[in-house]
Amino acid sequence: MRIAVLGGDGFVGWPTALHLSDLGHEIHIVDNLSRRWIDTELGVQSLTPMDSIQERCRIWHQETGQRLHFHLLDLREYDRIRAWLAEYRPEAIIHFAEQRAAPYSMKSDRHKVYTVNNNVNATHNLLAAMVETGIDAHLVHLGTMGVYGYSTVGAPIPEGYLDVSVETPAGPKELEILYPTRPGSVYHMTKSLDQILFQYYAQNDGLRITDLHQGIVWGTHTNQTRRHPQLINRFDYDGDYGTVLNRFLIQSAIGYPLTVHGTGGQTRAFIHIQDSVRCVELALSDAPKAGERVKIFNQMTETHRVRDLAELVAKMTGAKVSFLPNPRKEADENELVVRNDQFLALGLKPITLQEGLLGEVVDVAKKFAHRIDRSRVPCVSAWTKDIAQRVEHDPEGRRLRSVS
Amino acid sequence: MRIAVLGGDGFVGWPTALHLSDLGHEIHIVDNLSRRWIDTELGVQSLTPMDSIQERCRIWHQETGQRLHFHLLDLREYDRIRAWLAEYRPEAIIHFAEQRAAPYSMKSDRHKVYTVNNNVNATHNLLAAMVETGIDAHLVHLGTMGVYGYSTVGAPIPEGYLDVSVETPAGPKELEILYPTRPGSVYHMTKSLDQILFQYYAQNDGLRITDLHQGIVWGTHTNQTRRHPQLINRFDYDGDYGTVLNRFLIQSAIGYPLTVHGTGGQTRAFIHIQDSVRCVELALSDAPKAGERVKIFNQMTETHRVRDLAELVAKMTGAKVSFLPNPRKEADENELVVRNDQFLALGLKPITLQEGLLGEVVDVAKKFAHRIDRSRVPCVSAWTKDIAQRVEHDPEGRRLRSVS
Repeated sequence: MRIAVLGGDGFVGWPTALHLSDLGHEIHIVDNLSRRWIDTELGVQSLTPMDSIQERCRIWHQETGQRLHFHLLDLREYDRIRAWLAEYRPEAIIHFAEQRAAPYSMKSDRHKVYTVNNNVNATHNLLAAMVETGIDAHLVHLGTMGVYGYSTVGAPIPEGYLDVSVETPAGPKELEILYPTRPGSVYHMTKSLDQILFQYYAQNDGLRITDLHQGIVWGTHTNQTRRHPQLINRFDYDGDYGTVLNRFLIQSAIGYPLTVHGTGGQTRAFIHIQDSVRCVELALSDAPKAGERVKIFNQMTETHRVRDLAELVAKMTGAKVSFLPNPRKEADENELVVRNDQFLALGLKPITLQEGLLGEVVDVAKKFAHRIDRSRVPCVSAWTKDIAQRVEHDPEGRRLRSVS
Repeated sequence: MRIAVLGGDGFVGWPTALHLSDLGHEIHIVDNLSRRWIDTELGVQSLTPMDSIQERCRIWHQETGQRLHFHLLDLREYDRIRAWLAEYRPEAIIHFAEQRAAPYSMKSDRHKVYTVNNNVNATHNLLAAMVETGIDAHLVHLGTMGVYGYSTVGAPIPEGYLDVSVETPAGPKELEILYPTRPGSVYHMTKSLDQILFQYYAQNDGLRITDLHQGIVWGTHTNQTRRHPQLINRFDYDGDYGTVLNRFLIQSAIGYPLTVHGTGGQTRAFIHIQDSVRCVELALSDAPKAGERVKIFNQMTETHRVRDLAELVAKMTGAKVSFLPNPRKEADENELVVRNDQFLALGLKPITLQEGLLGEVVDVAKKFAHRIDRSRVPCVSAWTKDIAQRVEHDPEGRRLRSVS
């Protein structure tokens, strides 16, 4: 299949492109390389040394004989993306091309404005261009479990749609609705907006769309990135882009306290990066038909409380746990029960937390520990100005030590 | 009160600015004049001759002694709107500054892209700037009844929130959710996105927001626009911006068939423009407190089937009714029962369809009939490419007549 991977230079986009190329698909990576620019803006870098996308594509060809075609293109440029679709006519489009970090989206008013402008226009431009060019591509979008919000309803979170009962003069009526969103950050909000865009374009224009509500990704290697040092995946450890379990693992590797925010009672859904790319493959194999509603999968394999993860890593590695004020505005504690029946039915064999894979991440972290800027580890983006006052910029207490 | 009226040069914005000025408020109109540019793009003009906003403000001062302050500003320019808010610190903000026509939003892919980019960024920029500048203004936004969709659920449409019952392992649980949106066009979709933006900013930052879900406006004069010929309101009659009852009335005035699309079985909510400005006043008087949920009003006074309106106008004026293919993708027939208890409780005395006011519109139309370009009357923007094939561009049959 001819597949466009939008955002194929990113943390999940890159291993997805490799995975699908390995399966024999013709892969076109479309990316504006904004994630690399954001590293530059923030003065951070991937823990793993990451070659240019062109070089990565060259190595993949050298190792496998397969070509990855790279196109430098910004989805906000409507005319260019439409022309590109008309020329290349992909049969499937995997859409990772949105700013994906909640903390980055909350850094300042300009980061909020950038995230909304970038994500909403990118996704809407793509949808409008698909309709205009009349290509019959299956669109697979990477969304987030965060659109559900993290309040405790007491019912398992369904896969996108909720059965409700409404009172009418003729008695109760059963309806199936999009799960009501309660996004917790500007980033999560943009993914909630995407849901409405998808619902509309599936209904009005018969676009075939799958939305993957993904949990928090952990791990770094997939079967493909292991094949050559220069194919290594991006690994973010900083307070904006690093995901929680990966951060605990690098913290333990460099003797940094494991930073738990608030009580650590937040329950979140998780998925290993190898499962993430496999889920995209499975979603591709199960496209909705034109006229059908958007297909929504919960792309996760297990749930954990943040403090339990910290304890697990502490026990495994001897790291200390540090409880810090929470820069986010969210419930201290929440329950989370998530349905993921669809991927299991399609054949997903979940990789759950394994000491071997956890150890692999620690090994990667140790290998590249010299590249870590410890001052970039704290989470300093606050959800409101009040909360910003109590953010902890120095969990190691280094600043105090240097004063004394 | 110092009130910013964003989009205060528009069809509802202008009479709202006058109405609030008449009540003694200090009014700042903020507008990028995009609606005038769109007239230029489409080659149409208001039925009523409409002076520049600067001239209109001058006349208002001459007639009343009150000043209207006009600021040429585009909400998509984030830094400028933030600086403006910081300087003028309005106590209330009335937000009409979005592209407001469903047919215009569906004219082409570029019109879809413009509408999403303009509306979402305008509204989000405003919200981000309000948080950043820390002004405690009550934001009143003009939304649309269209966010509810037009499917028949069998229950009256509540004011924004729906009580539902959800099955949980512990038994049924009652929840109150935002009414699930089913927007029917790209324009309506943007107003559905706005709802999520408002929900988020009210919850995260304590912004005080009221969202007015307005029905279709009819009428042209308010008590203020009647005071001087140069204060007259915009009157759109074209197939993109004209609203249905106003269009029937101008059609009858110029001997054009009343254009009913489909069966005319669409039931819609209506409001007279005088009530529309009064509702904004009432909403201002009833602001939510910081931390409260978004207040949502249904801003309408009655519902009618489109074909019943056509029959009413036909009976009153002797006009013919012409049933044409529907350029929209929508249900042929729908029921619509709407709650508007909140405005009634605040003291709204609804102006419902009155022969006198209908006649006034016909008189306005007759007075300016020489300004009407009959070729601009048909609705030619189609919701999908398939539907576009059967759109009727010539309901009068003029093209055929000129051939024969």
